[in-house]
Amino acid sequence: MTLQEAALSTADTPAPGTDRQAVVDLLGVLAYGELTAFDRLAEDARLAPTLTGRAALAGMAAAEIGHYRRLRDRLTELGADAEAAMAPFVPVFDTFHARTKPQTWLEGLVKAYVGDGIAADFYREVAQLLDPPTRDLVLDVLADGGHADFAVREVRAAVAADPAVSGRLSLWARRLVGEALSQAQRVAAERDALAMLIVGGTGDLSALAALLKRITSAHTARMQTIGLSG
Amino acid sequence: MTLQEAALSTADTPAPGTDRQAVVDLLGVLAYGELTAFDRLAEDARLAPTLTGRAALAGMAAAEIGHYRRLRDRLTELGADAEAAMAPFVPVFDTFHARTKPQTWLEGLVKAYVGDGIAADFYREVAQLLDPPTRDLVLDVLADGGHADFAVREVRAAVAADPAVSGRLSLWARRLVGEALSQAQRVAAERDALAMLIVGGTGDLSALAALLKRITSAHTARMQTIGLSG
Repeated sequence: MTLQEAALSTADTPAPGTDRQAVVDLLGVLAYGELTAFDRLAEDARLAPTLTGRAALAGMAAAEIGHYRRLRDRLTELGADAEAAMAPFVPVFDTFHARTKPQTWLEGLVKAYVGDGIAADFYREVAQLLDPPTRDLVLDVLADGGHADFAVREVRAAVAADPAVSGRLSLWARRLVGEALSQAQRVAAERDALAMLIVGGTGDLSALAALLKRITSAHTARMQTIGLSG
Repeated sequence: MTLQEAALSTADTPAPGTDRQAVVDLLGVLAYGELTAFDRLAEDARLAPTLTGRAALAGMAAAEIGHYRRLRDRLTELGADAEAAMAPFVPVFDTFHARTKPQTWLEGLVKAYVGDGIAADFYREVAQLLDPPTRDLVLDVLADGGHADFAVREVRAAVAADPAVSGRLSLWARRLVGEALSQAQRVAAERDALAMLIVGGTGDLSALAALLKRITSAHTARMQTIGLSG
């Protein structure tokens, strides 16, 4: 069975072999991503200018923990150890966050918006390559819980009040994308099974290029929505 | 109508006048307490020795946000502004947390355990003085979501592995209680309506002394449970 056939099968558990490792990798990277998203949002909440804003960001952080638990439970169902599944991705996320620590409330919001948007697009594409129960879980976890609306409202208001903010935040968003890409390449180089799932699942390298193009276009559209330049 | 009669009435909304202010104060102090508990747990989660421990503390933090939302919604129902209701209590909590910043994972757990325990006992007593819907909300929010069990398990294991840990953590717990009392006195001095609700509701100063004695005894029992000396 090829990776693609395995992915399209309707079995409740992924096929054995490299395929299962790829699924465990994917759930592991998602789970640790949620844990660090919690951390990041909880920390950035302290930059909020009002208690209402602080509670809003804390609420987003809390939602990530709900997602984390579902991913961890799925790993356990698959017979994998959640801690072991996440461990390979700790350095990648920690490096990314250490290099992109927001200095202001608006930088924090842009990071949440840009980061969650790209991550969600990417995982949504990859989810199509998974067994149906895991796919449905991933899609469900990625459904936006209103984070984007809140960030868009706050950032657009700040840009309207001071147009100079737009240039600074656009630059910040480009830096975030650059760092994210460099960490994603590191994951692809280190996690063979996961890289194979994606390349194998999409079909070939040109299909992979098309996927990256879709993600880039969606990012550009999001930047326009929030009032920044891509 | 006395404060006590107002508190015992079955009306869905608290009586007007000082009583309403006391209820808004109480919900405000609880709500801001939940927001800072979120912050504290989220920050202490980073001290966890394992990803599982980190996720456990992050999960407790997430639960506090659920509580916060319910208290905020009740304030809104009562026609109060949540942000304004919380504002008077910001310095008290922030001072408390700044003076009791855990340096280790175990200190963080003891703080969560001791602080949540005393706060819950206190609010549970005061809840009896409130109108039924607010009382039920407060009691529901205070129901322990397994935080205590987790802290007890971890701290007892650490004490068993190294008995010297017990003395250090007992001292830490005493410092926490001392700081909490000093901040509570500050609130009582600054918030007349709230102080009146408690003194008026309990009946007189000797009843208030009895309430404090019950809270102290419960704290001592909790310390024994976790393997520390009170």
